[in-house]
Amino acid sequence: MILALAGGVGGARLALGLSEVLAPEALIVAVNTGDDFEHLGLHISPDLDTVMYTLAGINDPIQGWGIAGETWNFMGALEELDGQTWFRLGDRDLATHIERTTRLRAGQSLSAVTQRLCAQLQVDHAVVPMSDDSVRTVVHTPAGPLAFQDYFVRQRAEPRVERIVFDGVRDARMSPALAAALVSDALEAIVVCPSNPYLSIAPILAVPGVREALEQRRVPSIAVSPIIGGRALKGPAAKIMRELGATPSALAIAEFYRGLIDALVLDDTDANLADAVAALAIQPIVTPTVMRDLAARKSLAYKIIESAHSRFASARRGSMR
Amino acid sequence: MILALAGGVGGARLALGLSEVLAPEALIVAVNTGDDFEHLGLHISPDLDTVMYTLAGINDPIQGWGIAGETWNFMGALEELDGQTWFRLGDRDLATHIERTTRLRAGQSLSAVTQRLCAQLQVDHAVVPMSDDSVRTVVHTPAGPLAFQDYFVRQRAEPRVERIVFDGVRDARMSPALAAALVSDALEAIVVCPSNPYLSIAPILAVPGVREALEQRRVPSIAVSPIIGGRALKGPAAKIMRELGATPSALAIAEFYRGLIDALVLDDTDANLADAVAALAIQPIVTPTVMRDLAARKSLAYKIIESAHSRFASARRGSMR
Repeated sequence: MILALAGGVGGARLALGLSEVLAPEALIVAVNTGDDFEHLGLHISPDLDTVMYTLAGINDPIQGWGIAGETWNFMGALEELDGQTWFRLGDRDLATHIERTTRLRAGQSLSAVTQRLCAQLQVDHAVVPMSDDSVRTVVHTPAGPLAFQDYFVRQRAEPRVERIVFDGVRDARMSPALAAALVSDALEAIVVCPSNPYLSIAPILAVPGVREALEQRRVPSIAVSPIIGGRALKGPAAKIMRELGATPSALAIAEFYRGLIDALVLDDTDANLADAVAALAIQPIVTPTVMRDLAARKSLAYKIIESAHSRFASARRGSMR
Repeated sequence: MILALAGGVGGARLALGLSEVLAPEALIVAVNTGDDFEHLGLHISPDLDTVMYTLAGINDPIQGWGIAGETWNFMGALEELDGQTWFRLGDRDLATHIERTTRLRAGQSLSAVTQRLCAQLQVDHAVVPMSDDSVRTVVHTPAGPLAFQDYFVRQRAEPRVERIVFDGVRDARMSPALAAALVSDALEAIVVCPSNPYLSIAPILAVPGVREALEQRRVPSIAVSPIIGGRALKGPAAKIMRELGATPSALAIAEFYRGLIDALVLDDTDANLADAVAALAIQPIVTPTVMRDLAARKSLAYKIIESAHSRFASARRGSMR
């Protein structure tokens, strides 16, 4: 069984690749919920939705988030009522938020609600929140602290990032499924998806016990660099790296995950960084990582699983690191 | 200034007629909120919405409720998630419920929220709730008590009505605008719209002070019969009358409102009941009441206003009743 840690779009794409080559019981995707927020009275879980919609095959492939063929009549009417329209909610997507919110208010856990939504959307692989407790990513900027979606969507990630904190994370517990996966005998590898390390993966690592579990892992841990040729395929990862004083590169990703991963998948473009990555005691795996189509997604997924298995086998023989 | 008491579709139609012949400051429509309910985490006010949409000219003229040209993608997606879909919420309509709920949760009164929604929808005449407090119509049936929408929508008004109660009404206060209208020197007439007397008008009359104000009125009070030729134009009014032991007819309407109205507008069809109505000390006004088009709505509105004015003038001369 493989445990994948994922945020939004980049993570969802690899999760889909993994789901296409692994049986339902052989994959669990633990998803960042630091982006979650209350908006218009609804509990919105953007990263969970992106992963769920992607695995359900109903995601909008162009914009990355939301549902393909979505309509926007609710938003149009809300605009006429002078309501808050900066966070775009499609008519179909809204059903997910209403259903989730109703069930959470009725006392169900986010894990239970997510499982139920996935079942209804015929998502066979396990998609689970990192935690059922409230964790809220707050981005500190020169203009003060901003709630994540305020920073990311309303202000289009434009303010300079000084610091990122995860409100509530100290008291958060791992979701039951994530906690179980980390100690499961069936666990064969941990995959850190090519999501934004600071905004999507860091909140997961900050949930008490997760970072420690990765540090003390008994199975291979493999990350895929979201930075290719010094740039992020999508989103503000490179910009944030610069603002936080790092040089955006796959090497900086290796440094960020140092001690938590055994291997880093680098795009062919970054082959020149392989030695520097290896110098951090992280095995570089150089391969095409841009997942433009089904074949590319599957190919990357196979490569990761193959690499994990070979390391897993050698670990079983006695010396993993 | 005319105060109209209204429920849903039938009431909205006459309210529209009145709005077409009266200046904005010359009409206030006080609307039943006994039908209000919490559904999918949203505060829904079906009668307020019907009146508001009708006066805004965006109502669906065929089904009577909701918005013309509505789309149902939210409902479709909710159905796929196995959510509750027995109460149909259109994509545009949903914006009203979300906006209302958000504002109510922020501490605004239903009056304030309604005023705001009306302003955004360019409704110039005052549409106000009967009360800002929670009143919930409960229909007692052989199978037990049913919340109003459960009875009316989910069970299509099929269960036999034994008794109708308005939970919370004893502690409810009139909305500020309704209370002010009833004691205003500018008030010239009260119009009881052709809404269901038991389900739509009775809750308004049950709000402490409303029935008393009508009993002690100093201005003419005129009702329009929702029963024509022994049948309701729309809805279960006739069925409920039978279940409660009355014979469905405009005469039963006169008896229901006895002491609260000075005149009852009867359709030409019911001209034969005029004498019986007059015997109850209620002046029969026989005229076409089916409001199939704009001309019919305006004509009925003029007739009512004209009748009120002539009574108002005679009341001013000293003897109203």
